Amino acid sequence: MLLVPSILLNLHSILATLPHKQTIGIIGGGQLGKMLIEASSPYNFKYHILENDAHCPAAHLAEKVIVGKLTDDVKIRELAQSVDVLTYEIEHINTDTLLDLEAQGKKIIPSPKVLKIIQDKGLQKQFYTQHGIKTAPYFVVNRTEDWTACLAQLKGEKLAVKLCKGGYDGKGVALCNRQDLENGNYPFDAPCMVEVYIPNVRELAIIVARDQMGDIKVFPEVEMFFNPTSNLVEFLFSPSRFNETIITEAKALALKVVESFNTAGLFAVELFIDENNEVSVNETAPRPHNSGHHTIEAFYTSQYEQLNRILAGYPLGDTAMIKPAAMLNITGPTTFSGPFQLDNLTYLLKSQGVYVHLYNKQESKPHRKLGHITVLADTLETLLEKAEAIKSHIKIIPA
Amino acid sequence: MLLVPSILLNLHSILATLPHKQTIGIIGGGQLGKMLIEASSPYNFKYHILENDAHCPAAHLAEKVIVGKLTDDVKIRELAQSVDVLTYEIEHINTDTLLDLEAQGKKIIPSPKVLKIIQDKGLQKQFYTQHGIKTAPYFVVNRTEDWTACLAQLKGEKLAVKLCKGGYDGKGVALCNRQDLENGNYPFDAPCMVEVYIPNVRELAIIVARDQMGDIKVFPEVEMFFNPTSNLVEFLFSPSRFNETIITEAKALALKVVESFNTAGLFAVELFIDENNEVSVNETAPRPHNSGHHTIEAFYTSQYEQLNRILAGYPLGDTAMIKPAAMLNITGPTTFSGPFQLDNLTYLLKSQGVYVHLYNKQESKPHRKLGHITVLADTLETLLEKAEAIKSHIKIIPA
Repeated sequence: MLLVPSILLNLHSILATLPHKQTIGIIGGGQLGKMLIEASSPYNFKYHILENDAHCPAAHLAEKVIVGKLTDDVKIRELAQSVDVLTYEIEHINTDTLLDLEAQGKKIIPSPKVLKIIQDKGLQKQFYTQHGIKTAPYFVVNRTEDWTACLAQLKGEKLAVKLCKGGYDGKGVALCNRQDLENGNYPFDAPCMVEVYIPNVRELAIIVARDQMGDIKVFPEVEMFFNPTSNLVEFLFSPSRFNETIITEAKALALKVVESFNTAGLFAVELFIDENNEVSVNETAPRPHNSGHHTIEAFYTSQYEQLNRILAGYPLGDTAMIKPAAMLNITGPTTFSGPFQLDNLTYLLKSQGVYVHLYNKQESKPHRKLGHITVLADTLETLLEKAEAIKSHIKIIPA
Repeated sequence: MLLVPSILLNLHSILATLPHKQTIGIIGGGQLGKMLIEASSPYNFKYHILENDAHCPAAHLAEKVIVGKLTDDVKIRELAQSVDVLTYEIEHINTDTLLDLEAQGKKIIPSPKVLKIIQDKGLQKQFYTQHGIKTAPYFVVNRTEDWTACLAQLKGEKLAVKLCKGGYDGKGVALCNRQDLENGNYPFDAPCMVEVYIPNVRELAIIVARDQMGDIKVFPEVEMFFNPTSNLVEFLFSPSRFNETIITEAKALALKVVESFNTAGLFAVELFIDENNEVSVNETAPRPHNSGHHTIEAFYTSQYEQLNRILAGYPLGDTAMIKPAAMLNITGPTTFSGPFQLDNLTYLLKSQGVYVHLYNKQESKPHRKLGHITVLADTLETLLEKAEAIKSHIKIIPA
């Protein structure tokens, strides 16, 4: 056995040229996958994706599309075999297959061990409390019998009930009155994570990136507004209007979450700010996030570019802001389903610092995410005015 | 026949929704085509390209690659048939075929009538003088016998001799001593456009866009440095260090060039500034240009996005600058040909506001354009320092 002094090993890692050609596998081929691939164009990486729909948003950009369910053990293994590194752009996938592949030595970012925790809102909350990360009081209801103990432990007249598994984009979340729950009217017939409802909560998102060398970078925070009907993020902007104390605490919490996960990856940490300015972690997404779309134009390094760097073994890019930015989701109206067009395109395209993104979806459905618009401005004040004006011009009409 | 009042026609054109799905044909599949397709990702246009090499830089982004010579009449017609609109990213193509297709009603942007003029440096110079556009004194040498008249008309000890047709990236240009030419030592055996050499000339480029509705927008000017050996643009930045009078005059000249061409398209007008601060038009490229790569990150609308909008019939985007920017070409060293890597990638990727673009070329050759780097900074002074530091780290090594 040849012994190599550690100084030489270090020297080698400093001098090593980064690999240029890589094939990246993505489980999921939606808009997050699409924008991830788009952000790679300066590096010319290749992408293989697994998605149920051969005409998914990312399909035309991928070198190879494996058509299959995201939970299909065989298809995931087929994808893993053809790529250098594997990632995912959605949580509802087959984690057991990924855990097995990782055990066999496949590089999967972020580690499926973390996905296993995040996938289950109950496990995720337990993880935060175990690691001393501030989060709202909760109770995991596994069986109907657990409701008695849950209602005894959690205070307040309103409770937020969330399906432990399978919730997505506002689905699987119910706001319930204590009385209804005491009467046995439960919103879901499956394990739930129950939280005390926080009135007038404000929400922040902070994206944190960790590369394969262990370096971590925190993006500037984002303030979010949710549509009260669809419960989707409708409007967000960065920087936020919160004071320095809140922002510092939120960033420290987000950093602690990602340090505790202890794996390379890109994470969107969503936080609550209550009426007393108490900051707590709501939940984390182990992937690019709706709250980071604006990073494409507004920051030196976008969340997508950052994840590509992480996947390729490259160092993280600078996360500073170039200009304050707002992001408006373009979602399907409730009035129709089918082929669609974005109206007022001339107005939108003529506006300075307004970037229209369409996700290449063939049909509109109520509340379906069809695209987004990023708005840049020089100050937060002018930004919010401009974003309001743009928002009033976003209109999806039948094609 | 139904007569429609013109007020209603106008109203229709104002209210009309812009078409979302379009197929764009590009003659040429090099880096300019690659970046054009990349800039379209928010709109999801489809691209068909014609290129000699099935593994050209833009190939993996195109829906269809027709492999063939850019001068091949049959292949160009095949491409034209499958697309809604046709453009080109290189001048040395079959213009006669394009003129015929245009006469048949095919939408070609810019019009091949303009390409026919630009393709021939002699015709191009005549066009400028006919339209009262300031350009350096010249003489077109069609036959060897013309040299006598040329040397009698043009003054100065040094003359720049340029092949009328086929010159590209510094090829087809020779700087000659009058004495050698008088002795019959001619650099080329084909029609040439001869100019008086301008000592210590400085060069500006201005990109001008004209949409299908006839609206025109002028981008901020770019100051260029050329490598004295390869005669390639090596380093450029925007804004320039020229005074307001020079910039205003240059922009007016560039605007006049594009107004005179009288066709939709994106044009890079290159200008000379002599020792007396006289501004004159050197030449124009009817396509995205090396002097506009920095617009991807530095301007609200990039030259590529702008051309996509023009091709799709969309309105022009705002051309204001977000941050001062420099652009450094990454070219193949003279020391080797073959597979290559970009060295110092870790350093480059860690620098704030530094954007590496690689063109997906398989092999390096001396002076071959392999990629470029855009550098952003807050002021022109810090920009030039930063760009110098980055420049010293650009190194192509064998893979």
